[in-house]
Amino acid sequence: MALAANRIQARLDAEFARIGDQGPVAEAMAFASRGGKRLRGFLVLESARLHGVDPAQAEYAAASVECLHAYSLVHDDLPCMDDDDLRRGLPTVHRKWDEGIAVLVGDALQTLAFELLTRPEMAADPARRVDLLASLAEASGIEGMVLGQAQDIAAETAGRALTLEEITALQANKTGALIRWSAEAGARLAGADPAALTRYSTALGLAFQIADDILDVEGDAEAAGKRLRKDEAAGKATFVSLLGLEGARNRARTLVEDAETALAPYGAQAETLREAARFVISRRH
Amino acid sequence: MALAANRIQARLDAEFARIGDQGPVAEAMAFASRGGKRLRGFLVLESARLHGVDPAQAEYAAASVECLHAYSLVHDDLPCMDDDDLRRGLPTVHRKWDEGIAVLVGDALQTLAFELLTRPEMAADPARRVDLLASLAEASGIEGMVLGQAQDIAAETAGRALTLEEITALQANKTGALIRWSAEAGARLAGADPAALTRYSTALGLAFQIADDILDVEGDAEAAGKRLRKDEAAGKATFVSLLGLEGARNRARTLVEDAETALAPYGAQAETLREAARFVISRRH
Repeated sequence: MALAANRIQARLDAEFARIGDQGPVAEAMAFASRGGKRLRGFLVLESARLHGVDPAQAEYAAASVECLHAYSLVHDDLPCMDDDDLRRGLPTVHRKWDEGIAVLVGDALQTLAFELLTRPEMAADPARRVDLLASLAEASGIEGMVLGQAQDIAAETAGRALTLEEITALQANKTGALIRWSAEAGARLAGADPAALTRYSTALGLAFQIADDILDVEGDAEAAGKRLRKDEAAGKATFVSLLGLEGARNRARTLVEDAETALAPYGAQAETLREAARFVISRRH
Repeated sequence: MALAANRIQARLDAEFARIGDQGPVAEAMAFASRGGKRLRGFLVLESARLHGVDPAQAEYAAASVECLHAYSLVHDDLPCMDDDDLRRGLPTVHRKWDEGIAVLVGDALQTLAFELLTRPEMAADPARRVDLLASLAEASGIEGMVLGQAQDIAAETAGRALTLEEITALQANKTGALIRWSAEAGARLAGADPAALTRYSTALGLAFQIADDILDVEGDAEAAGKRLRKDEAAGKATFVSLLGLEGARNRARTLVEDAETALAPYGAQAETLREAARFVISRRH
């Protein structure tokens, strides 16, 4: 994952060097897209490797999904959304700059995410690029990530806690869709069937969210680099509030086993992705 | 323009019917993308007609640029940006719903704009789709529209009024880039050279902005459907404050002549685009 993170950061550095000194918005875009676990970009690079795609090509898709993820965090952190002051251990964009700049930074990071997928350096065949573009739009818009965010807002004002079924559906959109897209991207770049990676990442995405809910209760804000125990404070249903701490841990473990099993067609080649699944529920932040 | 507006609205209606009842964000997306002059979408459809592209194909690009424009308006109207209560004669999204929803609506309209350009119904050749998508990303992101918005914010806090050269450069990004993309789109869809349409729309875009500045001073808020005299109140430099009312009118007229001249290669076929250029400086809203 550290190797993947380095490659992704180098691609982003090259992009921001190309964009050049365009004032505070460009500067804040580079700031907002730095750091993090790079789980999504790592999934892109690993699934590409499994399908024999050159990492020098796949890094455009990996950088793209990290820009898209960064845009969603910048907008999520706004006072009118989650109102967070801290992200990845640093001030959020609207705290370091201001709200207007944070809106524009998120907007332009989304644009950059789509622009990166148009590059011939990623795939000589334009049909492959269109496939990645269309699937990222579907995963991130009103039928994917934004739908999940909207469902999350609706849940807060619903006046009742969500059921396990509802929260599973919400998370499949809010965080699951982008994780699924990332894992499928390597197969898509190779023009191969992504079905096994879809099964892997559907289980992984849910395990990731359950682990996030556990960390929100058990974790250390300093290690996490962000505010914790928000859901409890807001009286929101989480996997922990619905299943209990032990039940949530068991569910996450089962999901990681499902994720590992889904990778059977790839044999030993997929060991890094299996380790990533185990990491997701053992991580401290 | 009315015919173009009808076709674009029908395409958007079909898209929102497909998306279905996904709660207030989807509802507000449809609301925010309704109405307006549809100048950008009209330019797409007219330039497509000049290049023999079927309007049933070009309508995807026309709807796309109108979604992109609508996203920029929803975010521009936010309290942390221009803080407007009225748009196209109706309450702005954050007034009718709330700020969080307005952020998500803008985000998802941008995504939808890119998604529309991936459709095979627009162009069977995926290379054409990637070309339109890459150029729209360039026109709207940190090297285009968002850069112009960032320059506009920077100008407000600069403590001095912009020069004519600076405001021309700012507007070429803020509103010009998207108008240029729209006029070029038809040529791009046909795989033709957009150079004449680039010259036309560069002049048109600047004339449009000068006319906007004139309307901001002379116009009627009710006809405009939005708050006027904001720039004067904010002490911002405009083409009117720099050139005077008569000077601004003369400059706009010269630009419209330039725009008309640029269309010479298309002969009488381009008469509707010439009329559109004249409309841009004679309109009342």
